[in-house]
Formats: sequence, C-alpha cells, structure tokens
Amino acid sequence: MITSTTGPQPADFADVRATNLAVVLRFVREHAPCSRADIAASTGLNKATVSSLVADLIDRRLVRETGLTENRVGRPATMLVLDGSPYAAIGVEIGVDTVSAVATDLAGGRLLTWRRAFSGGDSVSQSVAGVGAIVRRVVNRMAKEERQVLGLAVAVPGLVDVQGTVRLAPNLGWHDADLGGDLAKALRDPGFPIQVDNDANLAALAEQRFGPHAGAADLVYLSGGVGVGAGIILDGRLRRGGLGYSGEIGHVQLDPEGPVCHCGRRGCLEAVAGIGAVLRKDLSPAETQAEIEEVVRQARSGDPGTLARLTSVGTGLGQGVAILTNLLDPAVVILGGYYVPLAPWVLPAVHDELGRRVVAPGAPEVVASTLGHDAAALGGAARVLDSIDSGRLPGGLARIP
Amino acid sequence: MITSTTGPQPADFADVRATNLAVVLRFVREHAPCSRADIAASTGLNKATVSSLVADLIDRRLVRETGLTENRVGRPATMLVLDGSPYAAIGVEIGVDTVSAVATDLAGGRLLTWRRAFSGGDSVSQSVAGVGAIVRRVVNRMAKEERQVLGLAVAVPGLVDVQGTVRLAPNLGWHDADLGGDLAKALRDPGFPIQVDNDANLAALAEQRFGPHAGAADLVYLSGGVGVGAGIILDGRLRRGGLGYSGEIGHVQLDPEGPVCHCGRRGCLEAVAGIGAVLRKDLSPAETQAEIEEVVRQARSGDPGTLARLTSVGTGLGQGVAILTNLLDPAVVILGGYYVPLAPWVLPAVHDELGRRVVAPGAPEVVASTLGHDAAALGGAARVLDSIDSGRLPGGLARIP
Repeated sequence: MITSTTGPQPADFADVRATNLAVVLRFVREHAPCSRADIAASTGLNKATVSSLVADLIDRRLVRETGLTENRVGRPATMLVLDGSPYAAIGVEIGVDTVSAVATDLAGGRLLTWRRAFSGGDSVSQSVAGVGAIVRRVVNRMAKEERQVLGLAVAVPGLVDVQGTVRLAPNLGWHDADLGGDLAKALRDPGFPIQVDNDANLAALAEQRFGPHAGAADLVYLSGGVGVGAGIILDGRLRRGGLGYSGEIGHVQLDPEGPVCHCGRRGCLEAVAGIGAVLRKDLSPAETQAEIEEVVRQARSGDPGTLARLTSVGTGLGQGVAILTNLLDPAVVILGGYYVPLAPWVLPAVHDELGRRVVAPGAPEVVASTLGHDAAALGGAARVLDSIDSGRLPGGLARIP
Repeated sequence: MITSTTGPQPADFADVRATNLAVVLRFVREHAPCSRADIAASTGLNKATVSSLVADLIDRRLVRETGLTENRVGRPATMLVLDGSPYAAIGVEIGVDTVSAVATDLAGGRLLTWRRAFSGGDSVSQSVAGVGAIVRRVVNRMAKEERQVLGLAVAVPGLVDVQGTVRLAPNLGWHDADLGGDLAKALRDPGFPIQVDNDANLAALAEQRFGPHAGAADLVYLSGGVGVGAGIILDGRLRRGGLGYSGEIGHVQLDPEGPVCHCGRRGCLEAVAGIGAVLRKDLSPAETQAEIEEVVRQARSGDPGTLARLTSVGTGLGQGVAILTNLLDPAVVILGGYYVPLAPWVLPAVHDELGRRVVAPGAPEVVASTLGHDAAALGGAARVLDSIDSGRLPGGLARIP
C-alpha cells in the first residue's frame, strides 16, 4: 500500500474549536442545504459538538436555519444554509496611478467595483490619506446596505513582510511603511482587521477562489505590471516564505550576458521578458496601456518586428516558468496584467521553452488570467473570506444598528 | 490590526477525528506527562471528546497512563505519557552502489543503522529482490524486539510521482517502476504501508525532525550526490508539487553559455556546481568518495587551483540558492551529500552570491548538514512518524504475538 505524505504541522492546539467551526462553515458552503446530522456524518465530529458549533455560527449570522425537510428517512431535519447577508469583505489594490476597490459578500458575489485615479508617487502619508478616503467611502456604502465589514486587505506592488509592513515598493517610492497601522489610524480604528500583502500574492488568491482554475491546489500567478512577481499557491495555500518575500521571480537571472535591469543586475526576468522588453522604453502606466494596445494591433496585423519581439518575450517568460516548474511543479501558471492581451503571441514561445527545459514529464497548463485588471483587489476580498473560512469568525454584529 | 494569512484548505471532512487524534498525540509528545484535563484546556476539545480520543490512543499503545499526581489543585489526575515502545519506523535509501536502512522508535530514537553494498545498475526486479532481502532482515530484527513496523519509506535518487511510482531514476537506469508495489510483493504483503519518495525530499524531512534546525517552517535541503535535488519544506510541510516533481533544481539553467550537462542542456546547476564540476571527471561513487577526500586535503593545504575550483562551485551553487531564495524565501538552506566536507571552501562564495542576487532583505542561513550520509534513510523513518503524527495511526497489535 502506498499512501501520500503528510508532515508535522505547527501545533496550534488552541485553534481546534476555530478549525472545527471553519470545517462546519465550509461544509455548509459546499453542501447547503444540509442538516446537522449530515455534518456529523461527514466530518466525524459528534452530534453534540456539531450542534454547539452550528449554534455559534447561527449566532454570528454566518449560517441560518431554513424550513424542515421531510424528504428523508426518519425524523424531519432542520436544514442549514449559508447566511452572511449582513457582511462584506473589502479588497483594495494600490497601483502606481490608480486605486481599485472591490467589495464582496460572504459567498464572493461582487457588491462594488471602483477604480480611482491616484498619485502613487506621493509620500506614504499623503497616499494613506487618499486610500483611507476611498476605503471610508466603501465602508459607508456597506453600512448603508447594513453590512458589517469583515475585513480589508490591501495589495501593494512590492515586498511586504509577514507582519504586513511594506518593506520596499520601488515604483511607489515606499520603504518600511506600516501601511496597515497608518490606514487603521486614518480610519480611526474601524473595528475590522486590515491586512497588507503583495499584489501577486493577492491576485493568486483571487484566481484560487474565483478564477476558472479555482480550487487548483498548486497554482502560480505571474503579475505582468511594471514589475513581474509571482503568487505561489502550493497544497491549497499561499506560500509566502519565512519572511513574506517569496515570489520575487522578476530579478531571477536568466542570462548573465542579458540586458541591464532597473535593479542594476543583468539579464533579470523583468529585463528580458517584462513590459519594458515589450515596449523597449519606459512609459507612465497610462501611456503603457495605450502602447500595449498598439502592440496588439501590430501583432494582429502580422508585423514581423512586433511578432519577433513578442516571441522573444515569450522565450524569456518561458525560461522563468520553466524554473518555477522545475522547482515547484505547479499544475497551472496564470499570466496576469499586461501579459493578458499579449498572451496569444507570447504563449507559443512559453510552451516551446517548457518543452525544452522541464525535466519531469507533464508541464503545467499556462493560461492568461480572465479576472481583469482588478485581480489583486478581488484577491484582497478573497483573503478576507479565507480568514473567515479558516476560523477567524466575526464576533458579533454589535456595530450594525 | 494586521493578521497573518490563511487560505482555503482542501475540505477533508472525514479526517476530523483522525486530525483530533493526531492533535492529542502531538500534545502528549510535547507536554508529557499531562492529564486529560490539560489536553482539553489546551486544545479546546471538550472533555468527553478528549477521553474518547485518549482511550483510542491507549488501545493502540501510542499513549499510556502513568501514576496519579496530587501535585495540583483539586482531584488528583491520571497522567499520560507517550508509549509506542512496541513500534518501529523503517527508512531505506537506495543509492547507486549502497543501500542504507534506519529504524527508529516512535520518539525517533535510533534502533538500527545498516549500510550494505548494492548494485543499483541491476534491473528493477533484481534490485527489488536485493532491497526486499535487506528490509526483511530489518523487519525480523524488529520482530525479535517485539516491535511492530509502522511503515517503510524508501528514498530513490530520481523523479517519484505522488502515487510513489519511480518515473525516472537515471543513475539507477530505472523508469516507471512501481517500487512500492514490487517491494510489497517481495515482502509478501507485510501488513505495513510502503512509501516511496525522492531522496532530497526525505532528507529534508530528516532535517525537519532531527537536524539542528528541526522545526524550521521554511527549510530547503539540497542533495549533493551524483545529481543535485532540492527537498522543499514550506509552512512546516514538504511541498512536492502537483505531480510530485518539485525540487528539480539540478537542471535549472544558470548560464546559457555554460558547460554541457549530462542531460544535454547547457549551464545547468548540476554541470556548473555539481560533483562533476568539483572533480572535473565522472567516477564511480566509491572512487568519488576517495577523490572528494583528496580535494579536501588539497583545499586544506591551500592548493590554489583547488581553492579556485571550489570557489567557482560555490558561486554556481550560490546562484542556485539565490533563485530558491527569491522564489521561496526559506529561513534555512541545508547542503547535504558531498557538499558537506567541501562546505568550508564553498560556503563563502555561496554567501557572496546571495548578497549580490537576493532582492529582499535578509538572506537565509546556509549550512552543511550534520545528519551524515544516511540522511535520506533517516528521513524515510521520519516520513513514517509524520504519517502517525498526522493521524494515520496503527490499527492494533494483532501481528505481534
């Protein structure tokens, strides 16, 4: 008999009840309508424990009872469904010249999608004031709908440590910014948790929960913005590394003789296959968007220079995806940002490189993201919902009148 | 408030009781002697559930009761300690010319360490017969000590899929070998699970459980044998990728103009910084061992050519560790195999490269393994113990007279 591996897990003994609450909540999310007896039968928890856990979830308005069903053998049972109508999750993405905000309900349905101009080049305190104002408006809108905000997660294009400090965001000019703390102050301690994360990490969570490959256990998202970063999901969870800095694929060296990168090194993935290599010049994000559209037009018309350039970018990107594949063996790699419109011309070269470079049988599926430009903001909401699913349940509804 | 991230986990509802058994077992391992009330207080499980779980663990002779203690307020409590005296875990490593076997008790104490000559170049069936004979002798020895074998895990230098099939082991000349199934037949269905895994994966598990960095949540082991592979532990668990092929760092390209590798590609880590680059020739494993000792002597005597060669190997290895670090951000990287004796001359260049290439603040600790040549075999035993700790408990002791 061959069994699959499991290793020791951190001994988080105090979380057993929270874990079991989360198990029941996820069971109801996936199997509603269902009875307490169904939950007990499927989870191995005893009936008294299930009743206690369900009562707790009903108190928190995460689950509600619906009518009896008699469509079964024996006594009719009270059926349970997901509630969560009085809640909202908020995700915000800070870009170089825009802020995006997304709010969803507990089931992930979109309640709100905003995009606002924003000057990321301002100081951290000016930026926090601007982001804070937008978040306050989102929170007010949710309050009008009588929804309590479960949490906020903010995506930043840069290195974010496990405590949520923005250690370095070169394109925003930020370093060592306590964005979460500053936002909490700007929002005057709003009563919900604020999390800060890298944009590729949150976009990966959005793909995991909402994308066409939702549920894939081993998925990597590659952001194609001003920089290139990876959000790495392995065995169903985002893997951020010891300090929180995983996914920095943009400055992995592909060629010691390659072009000089912004970072001063040579032949980095970003220099070989980033948006700068597509456009061959540095532009503002607004100009970049227009230029990418022009590149797409040229590619569609079969312009040989453009096609050669996109093949070269695909070759570099394929080298990067091959490194990811040899090291991590993901089932799917999702290209985001500016790579999405360019995918038809970039992907063939990516696949060629995978064929050449991947050691093991079976390369991952490589696809363009379908979640659009607010993938990281949506991922912020996904991260809030992930916290709920993991047992960080809202305490009550005291803040809603 | 900033909280750490958690994502959705696979909904393994049926495993809740097994998980809770494992929670209690691990609590006893870490806190013995302890009472049922201690367990209930620390885990959040109710007392009735804890009593039922403890009774189960006592039935399985994984936990036993010791005397009462009165050294506390209120009623004296019956104290619990880890038992497991009637059990053994077996790990085996198949090398090119040796087989190593290790047996440990439930607490990881060594019961047996064997190393035997072995001709890995034989056909799979001849090899299975040879390995099977050794395992049978280990099992018989354990039976004499009245220990039931909890499981066997076998380390193979090659690609092993998640089902345990050896897809490719170039240095053994094996492909698509159902080693676990064949061994089970050779052992005539021995009544314990047989697992097969990549050697670097198992060595990483050995480091995680028994090494000086035991318990590190984010740890990478780099094997330095005939090939170079990585065992990747993130967030406390081995991450084997979607198909089981993670860690294939040996054929990540460091330099498109680099030396030709055995695999036919150019500038692979193995070609730049593998044992072949140290020795500059291909030798049998026995000869390699002698040659490495000679290289160490030369390095100790300050031979400039040898020192330059080892610095060059360290530079290449540092490039590989930098890629690992940028992508995965481990806290510690452990060099195994032939890198261990060479570490004093290789590590300085590794650290230089990390300083040059790692994007985020804070490079990982890079150290030589202290577990010796049977790290992967010891890791096999660790994998068996991991299975127990995760709730795959032995059913009973019927097989022991």
